[in-house]
Amino acid sequence: MQSPYDFATGNTNPENFPTEALVEAATAAIPEVARDLNIYPGKLGHPGLRALMAERERDREGVAVDPDHLVLTNGSMQAVTLVGEALCPHPGDPVVMEGFNYPGTINAYRSLGIDMVGVPLDGHGMRVDALSDTMKRLHDEGRPPKFVYVLATYQNPTGSTMPRTRRLELLEVVNEYDAVLVEDNCYGDVHYEGEKPPAFYALDDSPNQVYLCSLSKIFAPGVRLGYLYARPPMLERLLARRHDAGPNTLAAAIMTRYLEGRLWEHCEAANAALRLKRDAVLEALETHLGNACSWSHPVGGLFVWVRVPEDVDVARLAVACAERDVYFAPGANFELDNRKVSYLRLAFGFPRVDDIHEGIRRLGEGLGAVREPG
Amino acid sequence: MQSPYDFATGNTNPENFPTEALVEAATAAIPEVARDLNIYPGKLGHPGLRALMAERERDREGVAVDPDHLVLTNGSMQAVTLVGEALCPHPGDPVVMEGFNYPGTINAYRSLGIDMVGVPLDGHGMRVDALSDTMKRLHDEGRPPKFVYVLATYQNPTGSTMPRTRRLELLEVVNEYDAVLVEDNCYGDVHYEGEKPPAFYALDDSPNQVYLCSLSKIFAPGVRLGYLYARPPMLERLLARRHDAGPNTLAAAIMTRYLEGRLWEHCEAANAALRLKRDAVLEALETHLGNACSWSHPVGGLFVWVRVPEDVDVARLAVACAERDVYFAPGANFELDNRKVSYLRLAFGFPRVDDIHEGIRRLGEGLGAVREPG
Repeated sequence: MQSPYDFATGNTNPENFPTEALVEAATAAIPEVARDLNIYPGKLGHPGLRALMAERERDREGVAVDPDHLVLTNGSMQAVTLVGEALCPHPGDPVVMEGFNYPGTINAYRSLGIDMVGVPLDGHGMRVDALSDTMKRLHDEGRPPKFVYVLATYQNPTGSTMPRTRRLELLEVVNEYDAVLVEDNCYGDVHYEGEKPPAFYALDDSPNQVYLCSLSKIFAPGVRLGYLYARPPMLERLLARRHDAGPNTLAAAIMTRYLEGRLWEHCEAANAALRLKRDAVLEALETHLGNACSWSHPVGGLFVWVRVPEDVDVARLAVACAERDVYFAPGANFELDNRKVSYLRLAFGFPRVDDIHEGIRRLGEGLGAVREPG
Repeated sequence: MQSPYDFATGNTNPENFPTEALVEAATAAIPEVARDLNIYPGKLGHPGLRALMAERERDREGVAVDPDHLVLTNGSMQAVTLVGEALCPHPGDPVVMEGFNYPGTINAYRSLGIDMVGVPLDGHGMRVDALSDTMKRLHDEGRPPKFVYVLATYQNPTGSTMPRTRRLELLEVVNEYDAVLVEDNCYGDVHYEGEKPPAFYALDDSPNQVYLCSLSKIFAPGVRLGYLYARPPMLERLLARRHDAGPNTLAAAIMTRYLEGRLWEHCEAANAALRLKRDAVLEALETHLGNACSWSHPVGGLFVWVRVPEDVDVARLAVACAERDVYFAPGANFELDNRKVSYLRLAFGFPRVDDIHEGIRRLGEGLGAVREPG
């Protein structure tokens, strides 16, 4: 039985899930795709969903995206892994990335033998001055990074968003070193307010770029559909390392039918519901942790990044919270070497709005308990 | 537009595809799984389909299979790749396998840097005397294989099936060298006549075994659902290398609903239709290539392996056939070093029974054309 106060995992909102419309989509899609289900999907995958995702990119970025340069993957994590496998063939190959990152990515890259070189973040994402220093150092050491991995929009776990000007500065550094830029935009359309910042590929048409996105966050992770966008010859380099006989035709056909003509309407409805959850988390934090902690105020994505007082052992806090049936992800999970840090991440997609206040109250209670003089 | 005479790819039969029943299954499954779609599936995947596949194994093999040792994958090719990635971390790590093999597996293992060591086959699969020699040689060279990969039932491309007695002999050799055995049984239930031979795991309960199977061949490749079965600690070794955030919940839930209570009925109906196609191929071969070629008589699977006269250049034959809108897979595609061989593979799942005769007639015509004195 899952706790109602589970803030640990980046799951999506089950409450306003469009069950009926998805059944309708499946009912329409299956007869259309029946013949194609009997054929291997090829490395790119279902043409309908690729066309739709190319439209999604064009609508958001104002830049034409060729659907034949767009590759469907088993969630964007398959794409994250594939990029590492294809571009880092040798153990110890360096990759430059945000110093706080998604544990799935950290585990994948660690298991591939990648040397993850972290760049510190601030409230606006990866710090470009620190990136520049890191690039210089790696070049001086004769081991330029195989790529720079950036999640600039609603970063996981920090919730930060990189402004347009910093994106341009980052591109300048990347291009100065002729480096490959891998942009992960999996949260890009989980957007609550303000302008959406442009994707890097919309600011610079270098064929050295790889762009990753997903349906997991705007729809649901259980459909396991993400995609990567890359142009030749980078596209071929990545495809050469794909060996799973292609992405899921059944799921892609159903999702195409569901999203066709209502992609943005769907996102707006989903985001409106998520925004209430974000607001509830921020309000409850103010009420129950206001005098002890500080936290990010994300304008998109699924996470609030909470800084706890220096004297708090986050692992002990996790135990105290679990006793109260409250779960969060300790900051150490996101640190590239899993070092202890005075942070925790709250994921607000899954808990119900009505449970959020009580969950955060219990978190505050747990915090009080571990701070009491022993 | 696909040719009606496409014998090139191992696709399934689109003709008696259960479209209506699949729509019904989706209609029932989506409301049941709606909440779970919002949660990451975990590394094992949908419990319902794992339970059903454990039953499938138990029904076929008469051996209990723990669903928690069964891992859903993105088709069995993800499992084939995962095994290579997990067990062969170093470039040049040797793997012993049938000397004729599936091109997807060859490409995957080549791209992983695996040293593929081929063992010759005869009409009953991998030759155990040759396996024994190969194992001895590799051990003498101080580089024992990381695993032995065997597709013993309706082998791709040769269509051969290994009898029970040879399986026991093979196990003896594998166990003598304390080697890991990876059994790929993806065609196992595509069965036309006679007894089904037992899987290796049913003959020997060594935890050094890994077993792979699939829904691609008994249902359709577009659902991208395969599985692997392994016991701890092998299970953990394999899972540690999985980084795609888990298999497809939507497709798994729909397939569970479709197959529940009718798995074997479905297989029997699908196999009856495929058997007619196999019979048509064998009959047409007899009529049109009988005095020039010889071929396998598979009791299951999707392929007939055809030996052409020594003087025939199979690549030239492929061109002559393409001019007649007939397609097959040249034997060189299946040879571990892609060397030319006097074989070709006919896949009979996809073409219609009524087109098979004409297709093979054209193949015979193409053969005649390339054999004419220039």
